[in-house]
Amino acid sequence: MKLEQASRLLNHGPTVLVSTMDGSRRNLMAAAWSMPVEFTPPRIAIVIDKSTFTREQVASTGMLALNIPCRALADLTYTVGSVSGHEDPMPVQDKFDRYGIASFAGPTLGLPLVAGCVGWLECRVIAEPHTEQAYDTFFVEAVSAQSDIRVFADGRWRLDGSHPELHTLHHLGAGLFAVAAETLQARALPR
Amino acid sequence: MKLEQASRLLNHGPTVLVSTMDGSRRNLMAAAWSMPVEFTPPRIAIVIDKSTFTREQVASTGMLALNIPCRALADLTYTVGSVSGHEDPMPVQDKFDRYGIASFAGPTLGLPLVAGCVGWLECRVIAEPHTEQAYDTFFVEAVSAQSDIRVFADGRWRLDGSHPELHTLHHLGAGLFAVAAETLQARALPR
Repeated sequence: MKLEQASRLLNHGPTVLVSTMDGSRRNLMAAAWSMPVEFTPPRIAIVIDKSTFTREQVASTGMLALNIPCRALADLTYTVGSVSGHEDPMPVQDKFDRYGIASFAGPTLGLPLVAGCVGWLECRVIAEPHTEQAYDTFFVEAVSAQSDIRVFADGRWRLDGSHPELHTLHHLGAGLFAVAAETLQARALPR
Repeated sequence: MKLEQASRLLNHGPTVLVSTMDGSRRNLMAAAWSMPVEFTPPRIAIVIDKSTFTREQVASTGMLALNIPCRALADLTYTVGSVSGHEDPMPVQDKFDRYGIASFAGPTLGLPLVAGCVGWLECRVIAEPHTEQAYDTFFVEAVSAQSDIRVFADGRWRLDGSHPELHTLHHLGAGLFAVAAETLQARALPR
């Protein structure tokens, strides 16, 4: 897919999985707090708490990938969001190994992308030390973008009833997710 | 509701309506791009483009309100997101007047809040000139928070089937909204 469509993947506020790799060590966490900030170039803001292992990996490498999980991956999403990579008994085992999470290498940065998701963005961090410190907010730019064309093609989401297991997740709290399970076409009101 | 629950209203990425008032002149726009950045204090990041009349009002007053619309307000949300307040033939008429949008005054800042929404936050802008300029991204802090308790109470969304017209909207693009029409409780995977 075209890079100028990358931000559209996040337009409706799905929860994402953030994957990172520093050397051979990988990590994966869930993040409910992200948003596009620009279509062209495709830029995104995302909150990554100081306590996370992901934060360490991002600080060290300046790279991260955003994976958009779907209904079929709800348990995985909740689980990797509840357990810190700091607890990994690495180099023997990381979260991918521990939970048997299949991945493939991103096309541009080689970051581990989570199989079974419906969208994937590899991103480079734009250094913004103040907002990283004050708000845990990172600004990143997508350098590769891919989607499952059954639900996102030609820059548009198609979340109709044909693939309910591929609908996106939106975290309400404590493992309860809203699912983007219906769509509605709005009409302009008369003036 | 308690202020420390304010960010939870936006946790699942709903599209919001941004309302502002400068003197007697009001404005209203839709914004798909917002996210919490902190629970306590309740802080939120939101993208407000330089071309909007809302941007002018926020720059002048340092305040804005976030209203969370629901399925019943889809057409209104789409409409106020498609028409600029710059076009208003004010002081005679603003978007509230033009489209017959009912509002009530916010409890802390007196900002116009949109009736029929399911959540309302009055916010003060935290001045961050660099991110406002570079990414159109404003950091704000909620100073009042209210919700429709039929769908958000005790800090939790309840988007079950009992009030489908109150489910939140998540903009996919071009007036097509995903509706948070189902929920799913995830379980932790065995290690």
